[in-house]
Amino acid sequence: MNQWEQYFRKVVPYVPGEQPSVPGMIKLNTNENPYPPSPKVKKAMEELDMDKLRLYPDPTSHALAEALSTVYGVNKEQIFVGVGSDDVLGTAFLTFFNAEEPILFPDITYSFYEVWAGLYRIPYVTLPLLEDFSVRKEDYYRKNGGIIIANPNAPTSLNMDLEAIRDILLNNKESIVIVDEAYVDFGGESALSLLAEFENLLVVQTFSKSYSMAGIRIGYAFGAPSLIKAMNDVKYSYNSYTMNLPSLWYGAEAVNDQAYHNKMLAKIISTRTWVIEELKKLGFTMPDSKANFLFATHKEIPAEKIFLALREKNIYVRYFNKPRINNYLRITIGTDKEMETLMSALAEILKVTSLTN
Amino acid sequence: MNQWEQYFRKVVPYVPGEQPSVPGMIKLNTNENPYPPSPKVKKAMEELDMDKLRLYPDPTSHALAEALSTVYGVNKEQIFVGVGSDDVLGTAFLTFFNAEEPILFPDITYSFYEVWAGLYRIPYVTLPLLEDFSVRKEDYYRKNGGIIIANPNAPTSLNMDLEAIRDILLNNKESIVIVDEAYVDFGGESALSLLAEFENLLVVQTFSKSYSMAGIRIGYAFGAPSLIKAMNDVKYSYNSYTMNLPSLWYGAEAVNDQAYHNKMLAKIISTRTWVIEELKKLGFTMPDSKANFLFATHKEIPAEKIFLALREKNIYVRYFNKPRINNYLRITIGTDKEMETLMSALAEILKVTSLTN
Repeated sequence: MNQWEQYFRKVVPYVPGEQPSVPGMIKLNTNENPYPPSPKVKKAMEELDMDKLRLYPDPTSHALAEALSTVYGVNKEQIFVGVGSDDVLGTAFLTFFNAEEPILFPDITYSFYEVWAGLYRIPYVTLPLLEDFSVRKEDYYRKNGGIIIANPNAPTSLNMDLEAIRDILLNNKESIVIVDEAYVDFGGESALSLLAEFENLLVVQTFSKSYSMAGIRIGYAFGAPSLIKAMNDVKYSYNSYTMNLPSLWYGAEAVNDQAYHNKMLAKIISTRTWVIEELKKLGFTMPDSKANFLFATHKEIPAEKIFLALREKNIYVRYFNKPRINNYLRITIGTDKEMETLMSALAEILKVTSLTN
Repeated sequence: MNQWEQYFRKVVPYVPGEQPSVPGMIKLNTNENPYPPSPKVKKAMEELDMDKLRLYPDPTSHALAEALSTVYGVNKEQIFVGVGSDDVLGTAFLTFFNAEEPILFPDITYSFYEVWAGLYRIPYVTLPLLEDFSVRKEDYYRKNGGIIIANPNAPTSLNMDLEAIRDILLNNKESIVIVDEAYVDFGGESALSLLAEFENLLVVQTFSKSYSMAGIRIGYAFGAPSLIKAMNDVKYSYNSYTMNLPSLWYGAEAVNDQAYHNKMLAKIISTRTWVIEELKKLGFTMPDSKANFLFATHKEIPAEKIFLALREKNIYVRYFNKPRINNYLRITIGTDKEMETLMSALAEILKVTSLTN
């Protein structure tokens, strides 16, 4: 080993869902939105003045923060924007989680939490979800260096009601509580309404799911001005210009078009409703989803087997080979047509597999 | 103070050059390129398929790395890309600089180096440049936790010849040496040619200056595969998808159009040549610039006075109120027309100021 290699930072990186690019594939593995972004984004793209690309973008991301401020009714000083909610959450971990006490999060949740904790050497304790994958709020009534809860949770899709989030906040007046709401628009209730009451609350959302813009990389956080300032200080200590011009411009257009946003959400929720019924008919069970995905297990056929059989048919869903969830599939809600193809494929796979079992 | 605030990460953020947006202003303060990006970028923008924005971008940035690989003759495993060279350098600091020995860099250089060191609690020692702003290479022949040198240096514009860089590498076989080449295309000589010889060398460049794309945020690094892997592991521990679709697509187009790139470089170098002569006639002196900016001081009139007087005339240059350099102006090379306006303004300011002195 070369001398310098002993000083490389030791990490266990996050493994993102695969991004296959197979013609005709049905991609239900990374919870992307099946519908395109608002037509206003397309218009902004066509009108983009290329000459402006030679200049640095606005480091304060004014245009984007302004749009979020208007639509969500939050002051600009209470808004942080970053390169996807991963950048926002990563910055929050680095900014807030510097106590000696461990931070707390569920054992089954977005697996990036323990990756950030590892990267920044943040002590953490994971608290087991109950058998039905719900969070036992009382587990979080203990001394800690911070709390992060995904709500709705991933990959379980389960939502925790706002009263429970409020109880956790009431019992944690000494540390920062982050609510990661990547999927909230699909049926959850945002903790944004608790912001006035709790100065230690940070609410994180994203453009990657409900706004159909995973490719543009925008995430944002709402919090007390003191929290946002602390995050911006850290951001300005890392990279002054994280948001490029296209993301600032296209992002503002997308958030301003709430009519389109709501229409697409309604479509996905409607698809989810019938897909749940059909999956149940095929022998699947799943937690009640408030997200744009389902977390399904079959009463007879192992999840991994179904996962591989679907791949054979060019249909990609997500399978986690991890304790407690290794018999579940995380299935993104696609278009009605995509989900019909999935249902036929599943029916076929289950039939064949039952016969050969 | 709220309980949680004691755990906020304490930082001293970088202060970027101001980004004024005044109609008719001449902006020579953040070393942007006065010419637009390659017309091929515009074509790519027009052809961008908006529907693709709903999908996550390729986490490996294949298209962009491929273009860099072809143009610079470096294997893809030796290329890291990030959100501007700040992201690349920030990742390199976090990845490589974890020794107990301090890292080394000049006292006058890109001021972000000490900000990253502060953010990540990296011990550092700054080594004074000589009186003429040159680096004394022998200062770097000592035990250290890493070295970073900007070449050409900023804000001094001075270039160090490649033999000196090589000598520093020969005398540092135990730690990582980063050469930050943000300005190299304007007349420096890249350390890229030393890559085969030194496995501990990382060469960092950017699209923000010579490629006219500060607004798109792309930086990249060349290094041994083991270094690039270590950086990617850290990147994947922070944010899997840092590069959005527009930056991947537009970036590849820009780097593929080397004919345009070289043409714009020649224009800027030609402008720089006459501007230097004109400034000397006005009583300025400056180090020999190999960058797209000059670092000028006047024999009589204080730099701050000139800086403020230029602002009054809607001409923005950069002034650093810091020891040793507080009588210098950093002036970006703009178009010939912009520089002619600057010259007239300077002539007028110097005349008036001499008379009133």
